[in-house]
Amino acid sequence: MEKLYEGKAKIIYSGPEEGTYRVYYKDDATAFNGQKRAQIPGKGEINNRISSELFRYLAEHGIPTHFIRELSGREMLVRQVEIVPLEVIVRNRTAGTFSKRYGVEEGLSLPRPLVEFSLKNDALGDPLIYDEALLGLGLVGEAELGRIKGLALQINALLKDYFAQRNLELIDFKLEFGRLPDGSLVLADEISPDTMRLWEFGSQKKLDKDRFRRDLGGVEEAYREVLRRVIGGAA
Amino acid sequence: MEKLYEGKAKIIYSGPEEGTYRVYYKDDATAFNGQKRAQIPGKGEINNRISSELFRYLAEHGIPTHFIRELSGREMLVRQVEIVPLEVIVRNRTAGTFSKRYGVEEGLSLPRPLVEFSLKNDALGDPLIYDEALLGLGLVGEAELGRIKGLALQINALLKDYFAQRNLELIDFKLEFGRLPDGSLVLADEISPDTMRLWEFGSQKKLDKDRFRRDLGGVEEAYREVLRRVIGGAA
Repeated sequence: MEKLYEGKAKIIYSGPEEGTYRVYYKDDATAFNGQKRAQIPGKGEINNRISSELFRYLAEHGIPTHFIRELSGREMLVRQVEIVPLEVIVRNRTAGTFSKRYGVEEGLSLPRPLVEFSLKNDALGDPLIYDEALLGLGLVGEAELGRIKGLALQINALLKDYFAQRNLELIDFKLEFGRLPDGSLVLADEISPDTMRLWEFGSQKKLDKDRFRRDLGGVEEAYREVLRRVIGGAA
Repeated sequence: MEKLYEGKAKIIYSGPEEGTYRVYYKDDATAFNGQKRAQIPGKGEINNRISSELFRYLAEHGIPTHFIRELSGREMLVRQVEIVPLEVIVRNRTAGTFSKRYGVEEGLSLPRPLVEFSLKNDALGDPLIYDEALLGLGLVGEAELGRIKGLALQINALLKDYFAQRNLELIDFKLEFGRLPDGSLVLADEISPDTMRLWEFGSQKKLDKDRFRRDLGGVEEAYREVLRRVIGGAA
């Protein structure tokens, strides 16, 4: 099958049927827009399994996604979409880039979840963008923007609940959306410890990519622990 | 009179009456968050005169401002306000930071004017901020945010028209707002070629601080030309 695109953490191949892609999850980890790089053994398989579980869970709860099924330990079959060139970030507590950008402590709870947008563009460093600029530059229309925000908040409510049942607090996460040939939106990309911040209730232990970004150690173990809780079901 | 604050282009002193400030306009010019510095001879006086004219014009058209009257060539008397810690930028065409941030050409016309916000914080580099984050961090309330946007767009319509009558196109500009003791909002700070981009219709000649930022020469002459057109009235 033809390789269509190689990203930092995944490779996209043409799929076995018309209108599908095969997604291969790599062990490569990068941070700070590719300035820090390493391999996390087993990450590809863990993230494929976690993402698959979460896409299934969200679909069961009415969220349209690109996910069709797992093909192997490291591969999933998805629907072909045109990716909306935005990183959609939902924040329940302050952390990471947000805290650094505005000079606020990490872990502050926000009165309402925030939906934040960055332009998906490595060369420009994925710059923050606001609603009016998105519309003004013609990157999305007003109806699509509303739909993206609505879906992002629904997904947040579902995932917060899902992880709370597994004693993990969902701090923030990044989503990408895609357009099907008929123009309808579906959740795309992946949902894994690479794209979420998860803190254990009580201990506040970080079980996500911040262990890699900040050299906290136990990276592989943290990813495995998230998988264990995902497949183990609600506590 | 007591010096209360010295900024990059102005000094604020306590005013002659309760509830007032005296604002002194300096010749100092800075760009790129203070990395580039120079003196532009006469700028202080020119900007005080232009700002005074524009505040008067806006007040005549129903915009509440902090301006009371000119005190001297370089000084104006204003009402004491608590500054809202935001830079409010209105954009009619792409230019400057916006073009660089999103990788778009300068001078593209936008379907509607954009209102953009930056946190006024030199140490953080005046980071871009979006509505939900402003509300989530408690920097403004929803009603005040709506009022700021409404005023910014009204001011834009008035200033665009004002400068078009003087054969200048208003590309973008930065505003600051302040709160009076009763909580009501007024336009504050200054409006001058330091805080606006003005391009001459036809020639596209820049008559603003970009001549200094980009070493285009004729900086003082450009500021004087804007003043000449402001005091000369509509063409």
